[in-house]
Amino acid sequence: VTLFDPPAGEAQLPAAVLRVRMVVAYDGSAFHGFARQPGVRTVGGVLAEALERVLGHAVELTCAGRTDKGVHAWGQVVSFDAAADRFDPEQLQRALTGLCGPEISVREVTAAEPGFDARFAARSRTYRYTVLNRAVPDPFRRHLAWHVPEPLTPELLELACDPFLGEHDFSAFCRRPKTPPGSEPASLVREVLRAEWSALGDGLLRFEIEATAFCHQMVRSIVGTVVAAGHGRIRAGDIRGILSSGTRAAAPPIAPPHGLCLWHVAY
Amino acid sequence: VTLFDPPAGEAQLPAAVLRVRMVVAYDGSAFHGFARQPGVRTVGGVLAEALERVLGHAVELTCAGRTDKGVHAWGQVVSFDAAADRFDPEQLQRALTGLCGPEISVREVTAAEPGFDARFAARSRTYRYTVLNRAVPDPFRRHLAWHVPEPLTPELLELACDPFLGEHDFSAFCRRPKTPPGSEPASLVREVLRAEWSALGDGLLRFEIEATAFCHQMVRSIVGTVVAAGHGRIRAGDIRGILSSGTRAAAPPIAPPHGLCLWHVAY
Repeated sequence: VTLFDPPAGEAQLPAAVLRVRMVVAYDGSAFHGFARQPGVRTVGGVLAEALERVLGHAVELTCAGRTDKGVHAWGQVVSFDAAADRFDPEQLQRALTGLCGPEISVREVTAAEPGFDARFAARSRTYRYTVLNRAVPDPFRRHLAWHVPEPLTPELLELACDPFLGEHDFSAFCRRPKTPPGSEPASLVREVLRAEWSALGDGLLRFEIEATAFCHQMVRSIVGTVVAAGHGRIRAGDIRGILSSGTRAAAPPIAPPHGLCLWHVAY
Repeated sequence: VTLFDPPAGEAQLPAAVLRVRMVVAYDGSAFHGFARQPGVRTVGGVLAEALERVLGHAVELTCAGRTDKGVHAWGQVVSFDAAADRFDPEQLQRALTGLCGPEISVREVTAAEPGFDARFAARSRTYRYTVLNRAVPDPFRRHLAWHVPEPLTPELLELACDPFLGEHDFSAFCRRPKTPPGSEPASLVREVLRAEWSALGDGLLRFEIEATAFCHQMVRSIVGTVVAAGHGRIRAGDIRGILSSGTRAAAPPIAPPHGLCLWHVAY
């Protein structure tokens, strides 16, 4: 795939390149996560292939948060370079709507300032996690909410959020990335700006958490622990202990992916 | 499958039988409609098999509205007979929740008066049809709303509902059932009590229609025609003409099944 296809015989000039920013929603149940991978259907793969088809050149996508298999997004932000002479935001949005199918929806397409990077320019990410806390499940939310039949105590859920606020080493609440031989292990220090529950009625509970950045499986690890606290199986003091221990083994099991949604990214 | 399994040697006495009423919700995208059929996964088939497993005897289900493939229900009502000595409503609901999976949810289980029939005792049925009327689709509603990108005019949608109100022969807005040789064709006269649209914001439109009863594909036929009217392609006067013509050929195409939900049944 070339950046442009000059008429035969004409000299090949470097095309003017434009940085593009898109806001994307997707139903994670239809994909093996975001990151493009050969042989499996991923959000990044479907999006990049559609962009390459429309723009006629190779596309390298950067995203604000690499969501795992089964995790949804309402406000995922991606950035990439497009040949300036091929860029028409409305036409691109229409074409992607047709090509990416109903599982992915491109909510916004805009020209960004040069050098804008969806990952490194982000100031904070907000995730939502939905729990359905009642005996009877809801068939229409089975891909969107974690069904927890045993009653949760709202006060215990609230109290269990406190230990996570502020800057901590989240080693006990992350899946540690592999460190290549000879290099330093990546820091798992992150700053949580906000973590709160709201009751939406009919047993629906929503957890919203905002942090400068998240490490791998951090929200699902936190939710798994906070829900255990909501059942009285662990207390806020225990959570502080697990955080400072830095070992994942002591933490309760992580929450399933289908309740999680990347809600908003702030720049 | 027998009604009960007497210890070997004991005499087999007829068991006392109880009429049971359940309210059931399901995501129709996971099923080939309600009616039990060999070789395909249907709502009635999954429910009856689960009931037979729990109760230990054969179960014949009657439902208030036989929904088609892809059509959802929030308030489907079913009735059946259970051996009285095996009937415990709470235990039955818990067991069905486990056996029927997240696609079907049994919302209520109660003992009904003898002879209660979910179909013939119903005074009216209310269906909801959801349309997403905006350019950009919503991945989380792709199984629950018909995505209509071209703008609809609310006043035209409202006007197009009027011709359907009251008692009419709905031959032009139904799929006519096969008439067995030698018998009278079934009447397609039905009475529509209410038909209205509401705007829910973000392009979501909800059509709600209540009738004493519906014939096959009647709601989807009406919605297809009303939406054509909302685009200005047909007028209320034309709809009156199609109704009185009694021929389906003149009507616009029917709406897809995934926007439709059997919402409530009144007794």
